[in-house]
Amino acid sequence: MLTIQSQSHPYSVEPFDGLDAALVSVSTGGVKCHYLIDQAFADLYADALAEVVATGRVVYVKASEEAKQFDSLSPVFLSLLRLGLKRDGLLVVIGGGVLQDIGCFIASVLFRGLRWALLPTTLLAQADSCIGSKSSINIGPYKNQLGTFYPPHRIMLVASTLHTLPADEIRSGFGEIIKLQLLTGEDGFRELMADCKEVPPRDPSLLHKWVLRSMAVKQPYIEADEFDKGVRNLLNYGHTFGHAYESASHFAIPHGIAVLLGMLTATFVSARVGLVPQEHFEELCGFLMPWCHPYQNILLGLPVESVLTAIRHDKKNTGEVINCILTRGFGRMEKTPVSLADVLAPAITSFIARH
Amino acid sequence: MLTIQSQSHPYSVEPFDGLDAALVSVSTGGVKCHYLIDQAFADLYADALAEVVATGRVVYVKASEEAKQFDSLSPVFLSLLRLGLKRDGLLVVIGGGVLQDIGCFIASVLFRGLRWALLPTTLLAQADSCIGSKSSINIGPYKNQLGTFYPPHRIMLVASTLHTLPADEIRSGFGEIIKLQLLTGEDGFRELMADCKEVPPRDPSLLHKWVLRSMAVKQPYIEADEFDKGVRNLLNYGHTFGHAYESASHFAIPHGIAVLLGMLTATFVSARVGLVPQEHFEELCGFLMPWCHPYQNILLGLPVESVLTAIRHDKKNTGEVINCILTRGFGRMEKTPVSLADVLAPAITSFIARH
Repeated sequence: MLTIQSQSHPYSVEPFDGLDAALVSVSTGGVKCHYLIDQAFADLYADALAEVVATGRVVYVKASEEAKQFDSLSPVFLSLLRLGLKRDGLLVVIGGGVLQDIGCFIASVLFRGLRWALLPTTLLAQADSCIGSKSSINIGPYKNQLGTFYPPHRIMLVASTLHTLPADEIRSGFGEIIKLQLLTGEDGFRELMADCKEVPPRDPSLLHKWVLRSMAVKQPYIEADEFDKGVRNLLNYGHTFGHAYESASHFAIPHGIAVLLGMLTATFVSARVGLVPQEHFEELCGFLMPWCHPYQNILLGLPVESVLTAIRHDKKNTGEVINCILTRGFGRMEKTPVSLADVLAPAITSFIARH
Repeated sequence: MLTIQSQSHPYSVEPFDGLDAALVSVSTGGVKCHYLIDQAFADLYADALAEVVATGRVVYVKASEEAKQFDSLSPVFLSLLRLGLKRDGLLVVIGGGVLQDIGCFIASVLFRGLRWALLPTTLLAQADSCIGSKSSINIGPYKNQLGTFYPPHRIMLVASTLHTLPADEIRSGFGEIIKLQLLTGEDGFRELMADCKEVPPRDPSLLHKWVLRSMAVKQPYIEADEFDKGVRNLLNYGHTFGHAYESASHFAIPHGIAVLLGMLTATFVSARVGLVPQEHFEELCGFLMPWCHPYQNILLGLPVESVLTAIRHDKKNTGEVINCILTRGFGRMEKTPVSLADVLAPAITSFIARH
């Protein structure tokens, strides 16, 4: 079990083998639980959730970008209040990133801050997003522009639910797992690659191992910089380019795979400006490209101009010099200002052309 | 100038004689300001606001309970974003309690926390609500159940705008001013009563003096207990009963006047259970009743049962024993559990009957 420090409260990250044990653990202890559950997960795990459902204190949400709209939250708040959620209750959120965003936002503003527990069900949520406090909510055409910093009071990582995930979701989850190991240094990255003889791996105990390893890497970043004003920026390694690929492809590329392609782009740019030898980029390509399959083909169809426009519009960038996280090698990432026209445009053009 | 400590950031409270000086002060310094302004105030002070309005970065809100609805916030967010508000901007909120609630909520969740400045325009907002971080938002029939703790980065207290307030708003503001002096002890309270030869006083410099004195009393409570889990509860003196009178009268009694009547009720209950002599209650009645005029007459028409129901439904109470802030005399308030049926019901019946 990890304990993570945060400005609002410390919180625990507890591993569980099975869903039943996690649900029993959270619902005992005298506090009245209400549940916010991803509809697709509830359909898949109806039997395991039967006792929870029997309480009548459940609200289901169909995960989508639309569900993350500010206006979509109103009926969720009202359902929870009508079902009797009180300020001394506990909101238990079960689902992936969308449910986490909605649950975090609701818990942070209901009664000016309600206790909540999170049971992340996707690999991406388990290995990365579940810690770090952030929620992101959409308003009209503005994506992820609303949000709060409000970690759950408890996070339960259940190994057994990972086996029902589709292969693409596992690849996508590994995008962030690989990123965290690249941030931590060469040994972790090589151990991870050696573990993954099958791409993507499906063995739940292997997935669970790398979920826990990811938490351990991410923890010091978010504890040192909860509000993302300094060292935590490094966790965005691969994200400036990844977000642009996601956006320019109209989200045809899953997030974690876009991050993998983004990290390769960042390494390619780093080699171009002389921060790393070209061989480092080539070696990483050999490791990471199999994880991107077949989405790297989508890159080829993207107009470079639409990728550059997306980079310009990224909320973290203003002007024609872009702050990118570049790399000097394993574990040596750093924020570097790069000219969009002189460096990024030709580098991205070359990167896309070679895949 | 005061500087107030808070978990998210320290903030300043600065007095200004005139509106112009405050607006110049907030809009210089290189940061791009967007404005959220109470419609009625904007109508009244159109000339002074002309330069602000000329920026084209203003959203007007008509203050009402409806404006505090969660669903009503969506167009306000969108207007601000369409007018170009960015994460490095400053939101300047000008208005009374409703604008403060809306502005605080918006600033706390936009870009996961935006810098904001508050120019409170009512006496109640200047003397009490502007410090303490809280926002309260309604959702459906649930009043004030959503909110955040997120103080402004700057508060500007302008003396000259108080002279346009109607007499009832001044009385209502004095409800909280009087409460704070009762909390601090006998000397402050007697000085305040001696200052107020006219009820309510209209001299802006006198109002400004007691605004600043109120800030000084409230500051240590909110610094010691920003999240309202301990000593800050004492600031609710008069509020359990006051809220019940407001609610049972369908908000025909203004907030601050309900608080005055609530403090008298609390003192009456305190005398009943032997915490203070009956003479203390009688003396306070002599001082406070003139401020309540003519709203004490509304009390007579209230069914006691509806007042008790409102107390039961108050968000801070569960069960039949009610935690009330009672008093042992000037400056000696304390949280005390009191039986609803055995003590409060007969005491409130008697209190209402004698007015």
